[in-house]
Amino acid sequence: MHFTPRLQQLLSTLRCLPGVGPKSAQRMAFHLLDRDRDRAAELAQALQSALDEVGHCKNCRMFAEQALCPICADQKRDASLLCVVETPADVIAVDESGSFRGRYFVLMGRLSPLDGIGPEELGIELLDGRLGEEQIAELILATSATVEGEATAAYIASFAAKHGIRATRIAHGVPMGGELEYVDSGTLSLAISARTSIKAE
Amino acid sequence: MHFTPRLQQLLSTLRCLPGVGPKSAQRMAFHLLDRDRDRAAELAQALQSALDEVGHCKNCRMFAEQALCPICADQKRDASLLCVVETPADVIAVDESGSFRGRYFVLMGRLSPLDGIGPEELGIELLDGRLGEEQIAELILATSATVEGEATAAYIASFAAKHGIRATRIAHGVPMGGELEYVDSGTLSLAISARTSIKAE
Repeated sequence: MHFTPRLQQLLSTLRCLPGVGPKSAQRMAFHLLDRDRDRAAELAQALQSALDEVGHCKNCRMFAEQALCPICADQKRDASLLCVVETPADVIAVDESGSFRGRYFVLMGRLSPLDGIGPEELGIELLDGRLGEEQIAELILATSATVEGEATAAYIASFAAKHGIRATRIAHGVPMGGELEYVDSGTLSLAISARTSIKAE
Repeated sequence: MHFTPRLQQLLSTLRCLPGVGPKSAQRMAFHLLDRDRDRAAELAQALQSALDEVGHCKNCRMFAEQALCPICADQKRDASLLCVVETPADVIAVDESGSFRGRYFVLMGRLSPLDGIGPEELGIELLDGRLGEEQIAELILATSATVEGEATAAYIASFAAKHGIRATRIAHGVPMGGELEYVDSGTLSLAISARTSIKAE
């Protein structure tokens, strides 16, 4: 082989990154060792430091370095709105849309009994506690539009009903700017069945 | 911002990887922290260990952990053939083609006076020393098919001439399986001007 042992080790660990195959791993390793050693050292340290210090928010399970994540700690957020999402990346996506200024709850997955992911893994008990204690007016279920995502939303909606909290589901349909021609048939059939009346002005 | 300071630091350092933008960096960071903490710790260690231990071969400037890289240390290689390439990735590419079993010399770049890359940065002195000391029959110039690559090849060929060593340049033309229709006009005009006679059998 052409690779020295430590280089081989670096190549194989780089492949744990999502979307990185053998060619990209080689390109990354050579770039780091060849042109950017200072940044490579920073990366190694930043990664270790994030592993040591970044945990989960005790309130919403988002990534946090203190007990509370920046969103839960932000007093300007509307505490009466709670949005349930599957992953930390979903929090970022919803927040960057700019149309939601409430708080979040991150499930860190979705119900999937075959993979051993049940209510306990999703922190449903913690969510149930918050629904009982906080003054929440609306629970927005923003889980994914998959079979498991729908099942998870339905399951959590039952907890909201128990506490007398209104549960809503984000809308599904043709995306903005989407040409009907290129929209998949599942989405299109859902968009037709979930059609809304046009109000005359 | 939604990101905690250490997460932000990790995101910005991940972006030093080639081909990684803000979205990929976020995906990688969340994957490492969320699903693959053990591998993430391995990655941080492998990177630090590679930075500490991987240097350059004193003979050919390829990555090496000892004084000599595995290729230079391999006694079964044909020492009479020396192939000059620009980067460590080029060594891997040429070697994986399986058609070359000689040794290499890695320039770690190409002549580019505007970027401050001259003969010194490319280790030409080291190469010149090897041409004088070793029993080299042929110097294969496999620098890139760019203006700088050609200039670098011509410059190194002059050293080979000084030592009375035959210098050759890898062939350029239409790639194998390449449809003429999709080959760029520069390559095609080069392929036509460098046409070879067909020998009757």
